[in-house]
Amino acid sequence: MPTAVELPKAYRLLNHGPTVLVSSAHGGRRNVMAAAWAMPLDFDPPKVTVVIDRHTLTRELVEASGCFALSLPTRALAAQTLALGTDSGKSMPNKLDVHAVRTFPATKIEAPLVEGCVGWLECRVIAEPQAQQRHDLFLGEVVAAWADERVFSNGRWHFDAAPDALRTLHYVAGGQFFVTGEALDARRHDT
Amino acid sequence: MPTAVELPKAYRLLNHGPTVLVSSAHGGRRNVMAAAWAMPLDFDPPKVTVVIDRHTLTRELVEASGCFALSLPTRALAAQTLALGTDSGKSMPNKLDVHAVRTFPATKIEAPLVEGCVGWLECRVIAEPQAQQRHDLFLGEVVAAWADERVFSNGRWHFDAAPDALRTLHYVAGGQFFVTGEALDARRHDT
Repeated sequence: MPTAVELPKAYRLLNHGPTVLVSSAHGGRRNVMAAAWAMPLDFDPPKVTVVIDRHTLTRELVEASGCFALSLPTRALAAQTLALGTDSGKSMPNKLDVHAVRTFPATKIEAPLVEGCVGWLECRVIAEPQAQQRHDLFLGEVVAAWADERVFSNGRWHFDAAPDALRTLHYVAGGQFFVTGEALDARRHDT
Repeated sequence: MPTAVELPKAYRLLNHGPTVLVSSAHGGRRNVMAAAWAMPLDFDPPKVTVVIDRHTLTRELVEASGCFALSLPTRALAAQTLALGTDSGKSMPNKLDVHAVRTFPATKIEAPLVEGCVGWLECRVIAEPQAQQRHDLFLGEVVAAWADERVFSNGRWHFDAAPDALRTLHYVAGGQFFVTGEALDARRHDT
């Protein structure tokens, strides 16, 4: 179940570089696409960046609505994540049904959040027209954040104490992901 | 030993979201800082983004030289990476000596590359003054890329076949990293 993450710690959901699902909605249409190119941009207020290709339905919906959500998929959702990064909502209007994507409402934006994920960031676009037009680069302010408390609580990820199916993903290419691995405390790490 | 990575596959060095070391040099001064906020921005020509705080020495050197390098540290370098993200080259002019950072020359830019890392991206700044000034966000074109062939060859990471000490890192907060974990092929993954 999603538990609220306090905004100054929302960057920690993305800090380890996981692959995300970008969801969007406008005028009765909605979409979810996978994106490996997302990262934090600031702590407080929390901001993020994400690359959204100009040929995608997501791009249309984000530009029209001024908002997007990032959901963090898990190992159990790897095949679904790959499919959502492969098929386009433009050529497959029923993409979410085809890939059995279930969503639940966000609290502050229209874009939905994806069920089965373990972290969620509700974002409003920060207008940077040049970055958007030249580089497909979108900036967003995080206006609400949520996490599955089985793996994230008190501002920390705790993958080691939960089933491996709940670990986050890091996409490489050609269908290959890495799963988020072992935790390491560098203050106690003797190199 | 660094082996050349063909430029259209250079994004794969960063695609899984690892923490990087940002190196810079200008006018006889040089620096290396850690950054968790870096990601690919485009495939070919390859481009990257990285957040470089306005109070850092790295920022001065990158703005003066118009270039930076990203090196990918390993599990074995976790403590050094944390130190390079904690201490400032401004208040500690001998930072690289203090933390025993050894470097070797890049091929196309002045900024040095960090020894012991497993991937290296030589980058020239793409001028986007508004993103730099408002958001500390730097864009760079990758002009050369290298990898340690023990873990990256033919455009692919191969961590499973190498010592765990060579796995890349994903920073969270408070000295805690995750190590890049198990590889997963979603085309063959039965969820």
